[in-house]
Amino acid sequence: MTIHAQLPVDVLNARIAKIQSLLANTQAQAMLVSTNVNLYYTSGRVFSGYAYIPVQGQPQYFVRRPVGLTGDNVHYIGKPEQIADILTQLGVELPANLGLELDLVAASMADRLSRAFATATISNCSTVLRAARAVKEEYELDLLRQSGIKHAESYSHIKSLYHEGMSDLTLQIEIERISRLNGCLGQFRISGDSMEIFMGNTICGDNADNPAPYDFAMGGAGLNPTLPVGCDGTEIKPGMAIMVDVNGNYTGYMTDMTRVFSCGQLSELAVKAHECSRRIVAELAQMGRPGVEAKTLYERAVAIAQEEGLDAYFMGHKQKAGFVGHGVGIEINELPVLAPRSRDILAVGNSIAVEPKFVIPGVGAVGVENTYIVTENGMVSITNAPEEIISLDN
Amino acid sequence: MTIHAQLPVDVLNARIAKIQSLLANTQAQAMLVSTNVNLYYTSGRVFSGYAYIPVQGQPQYFVRRPVGLTGDNVHYIGKPEQIADILTQLGVELPANLGLELDLVAASMADRLSRAFATATISNCSTVLRAARAVKEEYELDLLRQSGIKHAESYSHIKSLYHEGMSDLTLQIEIERISRLNGCLGQFRISGDSMEIFMGNTICGDNADNPAPYDFAMGGAGLNPTLPVGCDGTEIKPGMAIMVDVNGNYTGYMTDMTRVFSCGQLSELAVKAHECSRRIVAELAQMGRPGVEAKTLYERAVAIAQEEGLDAYFMGHKQKAGFVGHGVGIEINELPVLAPRSRDILAVGNSIAVEPKFVIPGVGAVGVENTYIVTENGMVSITNAPEEIISLDN
Repeated sequence: MTIHAQLPVDVLNARIAKIQSLLANTQAQAMLVSTNVNLYYTSGRVFSGYAYIPVQGQPQYFVRRPVGLTGDNVHYIGKPEQIADILTQLGVELPANLGLELDLVAASMADRLSRAFATATISNCSTVLRAARAVKEEYELDLLRQSGIKHAESYSHIKSLYHEGMSDLTLQIEIERISRLNGCLGQFRISGDSMEIFMGNTICGDNADNPAPYDFAMGGAGLNPTLPVGCDGTEIKPGMAIMVDVNGNYTGYMTDMTRVFSCGQLSELAVKAHECSRRIVAELAQMGRPGVEAKTLYERAVAIAQEEGLDAYFMGHKQKAGFVGHGVGIEINELPVLAPRSRDILAVGNSIAVEPKFVIPGVGAVGVENTYIVTENGMVSITNAPEEIISLDN
Repeated sequence: MTIHAQLPVDVLNARIAKIQSLLANTQAQAMLVSTNVNLYYTSGRVFSGYAYIPVQGQPQYFVRRPVGLTGDNVHYIGKPEQIADILTQLGVELPANLGLELDLVAASMADRLSRAFATATISNCSTVLRAARAVKEEYELDLLRQSGIKHAESYSHIKSLYHEGMSDLTLQIEIERISRLNGCLGQFRISGDSMEIFMGNTICGDNADNPAPYDFAMGGAGLNPTLPVGCDGTEIKPGMAIMVDVNGNYTGYMTDMTRVFSCGQLSELAVKAHECSRRIVAELAQMGRPGVEAKTLYERAVAIAQEEGLDAYFMGHKQKAGFVGHGVGIEINELPVLAPRSRDILAVGNSIAVEPKFVIPGVGAVGVENTYIVTENGMVSITNAPEEIISLDN
């Protein structure tokens, strides 16, 4: 069982070279990666252990579990204190400054790792990995496109899953099942302090106006104070908008996609806001070209909502989200971020979920979300499915 | 919307007093809690923000999101740098030493929080919270028992979900659905570097012998190198054992339970190993009393497996897990741990999942897992369901 699993060696080599060129701009001479998501990124599979990436030369993989991994530069260890010795035996010069993922690794573990490289000072290499991951390789774009196709397929079944008397929860459970049967891996990864994510959220009626603790575009009260987000058991009734934001992870690369369903007739205001969301994603897709500042897309979205007199409902009503889009990949929230204080500049190969949403009191949440890939000619959607509000009941 | 949600105030007050008495044994005069799981524990609901718990006096809650939380000692903030000023305005003396959850909080965030209390030295209060949480209050035991009842109910449907031609994956998807319809909240929490968990694992045949990176009792190859654990799509065929270890989170408090199903006839060795597992849980339940060292339960389990000539298969075959049980509660892995180097001493109110399992090559994984509560008279199971191997196909 090779450590690189399905990842082609030339793809891995190019990726390591990209990371090394970013690492060369920091004070670190090497970095030690220890989180699952970045071990996958730097090796091709999740394992328990560490990836040591010097600014020049080959990466070395230090594995605790599972047993039986093979491949160049794989070393089994019991504890991280063995790493420096093994590197020395290999003739690798230990770094004067070592990069650690300080935005991700627990403080006590970071302290332990820094002591395991006793002579090194420590710097934060989280930014290097975030920057590398923001620009997807063709190999990654293929996996994203495959996920987007499957994601849209799963959504195509939603109308047929509905029956009268369902709640947001029972509908969501059937969407979870159809997604899983269609290949969704079930588990998602999310970055950031206190962020947690399940398979996604189905929110209907005024539950959309219940604020959540998470930095998501939409909230919902949830079913329990331990997990206060998403569906709350509201029965689906005429006049309600049902927003389905169930995520797609069909390849390890995640797509984000939202569609809105209706029961009975929605208010004119809700329909208008939904059309405004469609206008925003269309305009932003045109604007989203390499070299463009990410924040200008956010500003344009806000301006359109204001122009249409909908700003009171834009990105939430009682509580507002501070962004209109975010990168997606091996985590559901990557760079670039489309937000007012974002310093990100769009580049070819960014994959970005754009989600201009509105909460209309008495109706629910409306708006669309697609995942796009940035090309020279603008952003191309990879979650292709009808954007209109779809009636569940006729 | 009160911050304490459903948590009765007297339960919260007693819990804070328990935490404070443990905190008094450390060098810290206060601790600042910032992870979702411990915010829930110290307030009664998950929010984005911080709980400040002094060694004496009332806790103070600093909330970023959601909007609209009410209750005594709730303060809205934009950033943690405001906390010290607000405490000073309240007349609270700032601590000379501040406890942070250094085993959980990212290094850069811990650094930021320590700078926000510029005059304080920092210590690690992770242990205080782990110790407090290991001993459940009656309120918590009720939630655990409710979860166990629902968990067993969900398992009672499994045989009826099976049809010929199913894979481990398609069976698992139906178990996920029936669990959700029966009230499972879907999302689970797990502690520890690099630990990740979905709803659970269904493992059949020789997939049980595929080692995983996670520190779980059982492995499985999984469906993708980004998530290398659990079912791998193996078709269920005669002679195979199907181990279902799908977790229970019906109340925010999690129960852990495993049962084994068969297709066709299992080998004598597999049946013998399953009966040995039943013997181990029965003996350990008798042994598990207050004051007993947790490691002695592990040692006894190993001794029984050796006595029956089954040690080659115990807790894995190609890769072995280094424990036979673990605490459960608001995370799936709490204290005490039944492992050779555990220093934990059992106490009334511990809730412990005991999972002596065997991997039999050519057959699969066998054994049972129950969640127990430690009482003066031994451990009492709260996941009550038949322990025999259940035939799926007749």
